[in-house]
Amino acid sequence: MYQFFYSPNSCSLATHIVLEEIGAPFEALRVNLAGGEQRQPAFLALNPAGRVPALATPQGVLNETPALLAFLAQAWPQAKLAPLDDAFAFARLQAFNSYLCSTVHVARAHGRRGSRWADDEQAIEAMKRKVPQNLSDSFELIESRLFAGPWVQGADYTVADAYLFVLSRWFDSDGLDLSRFPKLHEHHARMLQRPAVQRALAREAAPA
Amino acid sequence: MYQFFYSPNSCSLATHIVLEEIGAPFEALRVNLAGGEQRQPAFLALNPAGRVPALATPQGVLNETPALLAFLAQAWPQAKLAPLDDAFAFARLQAFNSYLCSTVHVARAHGRRGSRWADDEQAIEAMKRKVPQNLSDSFELIESRLFAGPWVQGADYTVADAYLFVLSRWFDSDGLDLSRFPKLHEHHARMLQRPAVQRALAREAAPA
Repeated sequence: MYQFFYSPNSCSLATHIVLEEIGAPFEALRVNLAGGEQRQPAFLALNPAGRVPALATPQGVLNETPALLAFLAQAWPQAKLAPLDDAFAFARLQAFNSYLCSTVHVARAHGRRGSRWADDEQAIEAMKRKVPQNLSDSFELIESRLFAGPWVQGADYTVADAYLFVLSRWFDSDGLDLSRFPKLHEHHARMLQRPAVQRALAREAAPA
Repeated sequence: MYQFFYSPNSCSLATHIVLEEIGAPFEALRVNLAGGEQRQPAFLALNPAGRVPALATPQGVLNETPALLAFLAQAWPQAKLAPLDDAFAFARLQAFNSYLCSTVHVARAHGRRGSRWADDEQAIEAMKRKVPQNLSDSFELIESRLFAGPWVQGADYTVADAYLFVLSRWFDSDGLDLSRFPKLHEHHARMLQRPAVQRALAREAAPA
């Protein structure tokens, strides 16, 4: 049994979807980011960086979305959520997840958490102004070069699809228009049909 | 035979070291970042994001340091550079690499490539001012919480050590003082003794 620490509509949704896809037994525990719970000692013991997601396993706690997605795929091979027997294909999957984590998620964070990278209020506003362009550039690159279709890696659904879904969802909810990217727009709609995605979204939307 | 595309003293040094540790046959090809070679069509065919490292393998091209490090460890298991038979330990390794990639490297990039995230010159200067604090906070967290010692994961040298070495090297060369973090300082000195590290550094220091 895992304990899964998440915050609704954060990047932890990717891990949440994958837990539901696998059918792994887990207890979902909501972290109140607005109330600063992630900076309290109890949570810092789970992740010293003070961020969701965190997954408490019988062996210890794991953090960082790309690591969690690969872990769940490897620990539950019968779910077939990654090409585990092909180091090259697995690396392509991981490269995609790394791009989402270190470029796309980071680009979006400059619109909401600019104070991580500058103290000056005008600098924080300047960062916000550049977010739509940076996100659009990244989605253009994913649409045209990185996305095989119908799923990220082609015929097989993988953990990368759950991660892309989260970034696409933000893109739309931030007032940008995902329909400019037809393949990614269709991917998002296809994800919404999956029962595992629906279960994770319903849990995150429920009152605390 | 791999073709390895790198730029001296960039994050591609981590992959460079691991290629040398493995003893994999590879051709090292220097990319002239200052001359904009990474934005030319020939390089964009290797990595549409226009960044090093890129590794051309017989199956195709791979990018993104965390993905490359895991790939080389998996493709060359006899080198024993990752705990490949333990999904939890492998995930801890990957979480460490993900933290270096999406938090520590990103923090440092705000001192050199702030124009990625803002167009305003004053904003770019404001980002530069916050870099030493952000890097110090990250190294404090690595020293106190994430680093087991004598290697990142404890008794066994892994690909994460090569990646940490690159970040530690930047920390010192950026005028910060790595000796404030005794474990990481000692780790850096220990890395410099490894023949594979010496070979990669010598190749990167050679005239183009």
